[in-house]
Amino acid sequence: MNRIESRLEELGYALPVAPAPVASYVNCVRTGNQVFVSGGLPLDGDRLITGKVGEDVDVEEARRAAKLIILNRLAVLREFLGDLDQITRIVAVGGFVSCGPDFTEHPAVINGASDLLVEVFGEAGRHSRTAVGAPSLPLGAAVEINLIVEVAPPVA
Amino acid sequence: MNRIESRLEELGYALPVAPAPVASYVNCVRTGNQVFVSGGLPLDGDRLITGKVGEDVDVEEARRAAKLIILNRLAVLREFLGDLDQITRIVAVGGFVSCGPDFTEHPAVINGASDLLVEVFGEAGRHSRTAVGAPSLPLGAAVEINLIVEVAPPVA
Amino acid sequence: MNRIESRLEELGYALPVAPAPVASYVNCVRTGNQVFVSGGLPLDGDRLITGKVGEDVDVEEARRAAKLIILNRLAVLREFLGDLDQITRIVAVGGFVSCGPDFTEHPAVINGASDLLVEVFGEAGRHSRTAVGAPSLPLGAAVEINLIVEVAPPVA
Repeated sequence: MNRIESRLEELGYALPVAPAPVASYVNCVRTGNQVFVSGGLPLDGDRLITGKVGEDVDVEEARRAAKLIILNRLAVLREFLGDLDQITRIVAVGGFVSCGPDFTEHPAVINGASDLLVEVFGEAGRHSRTAVGAPSLPLGAAVEINLIVEVAPPVA
Repeated sequence: MNRIESRLEELGYALPVAPAPVASYVNCVRTGNQVFVSGGLPLDGDRLITGKVGEDVDVEEARRAAKLIILNRLAVLREFLGDLDQITRIVAVGGFVSCGPDFTEHPAVINGASDLLVEVFGEAGRHSRTAVGAPSLPLGAAVEINLIVEVAPPVA
Repeated sequence: MNRIESRLEELGYALPVAPAPVASYVNCVRTGNQVFVSGGLPLDGDRLITGKVGEDVDVEEARRAAKLIILNRLAVLREFLGDLDQITRIVAVGGFVSCGPDFTEHPAVINGASDLLVEVFGEAGRHSRTAVGAPSLPLGAAVEINLIVEVAPPVA
């Protein structure tokens, strides 16, 4: 088993089956050394975590939703790259929180994603980030997250 | 006429005149093999499609708005690149839907963009995607879409 | 003093102390010739400019908030790169405006950022841009902006 998958196992995380995109696009596109990963939704097994954060969903549950998205984004990357050890850096995280006009704790929610990435990838997991609110997200999801990762160039 | 423009014609699409940015920025910036295309609004000729999707604008009309944005983004890229055949891959699509808190059909709306890209570019049109809601968009637009595309390196 | 810092001084701008991220991520990540800069919030000294644009905050004040974000993003880039002259192009600006469903002046707000970038960097400051609304932003901020910049390759 490779390094990052061993690390995930050691931390007690199991990757889910990579979810299929909900429409006519793909999960990942590679250009040069960058892989762009489509916005993922919080699947807890087969159930989508839906609702407004701060109203229907509390911050703790939303943070867990963000973590679940990262696990399914890593599943998608494993499927695409063959091996998570190809990832040399988590470059950028875009986090969208479904919420109302008075919500202010977007950073705490998206920390569920950021903390997991650093836990799993160490220094290479330290990323730039943008966290914002949205009035609603696809299928009523509570959180949505996309990623850009850097991968190793193919060995010549 | 080049390959992609012939394909657009064959599919019955005419590219509009490339719209000018609504403020002090540019439509496209190239860095390395990537071109970043500014967020575009749905212009139907001279008319901007405005309103909240799911309230003032139905999903079918919003999907058409998404398609119109792609046509005007392709017009912008043709102007910038000289030739759409320079595009080797549609890398990423960011789709913003103006909507209320109960809207859930963001994917169906942005499919208007995704389906057209695949129809025109084939496999090279298959992109990563993030679709989210927004309480409002510039000038009251119903939809806004940005793109990152990969282009061929200049021939040495 | 280097060229861009001289230009800032000439224009009467002082860079603030680079603010620390509000959570477990970093301000900047470099991959190849691109630097991704995390979403920044409008700090006026120690005070965060909060509220809904078009309601609590007028467009002129929001435009000033966008400008303040660029000054603190440049402070962050100076800290990261050592020298702002490393920047060869401002590639992309993502601007989020906290606002209600009837707001339409997102471009005027984010022009506070765009105009300053062009004023400081000249042609290299002309960027692609996406401006959208959000129902709320981290800590109640009125505006949030992220950037992608291109930097010179290291001298061989």
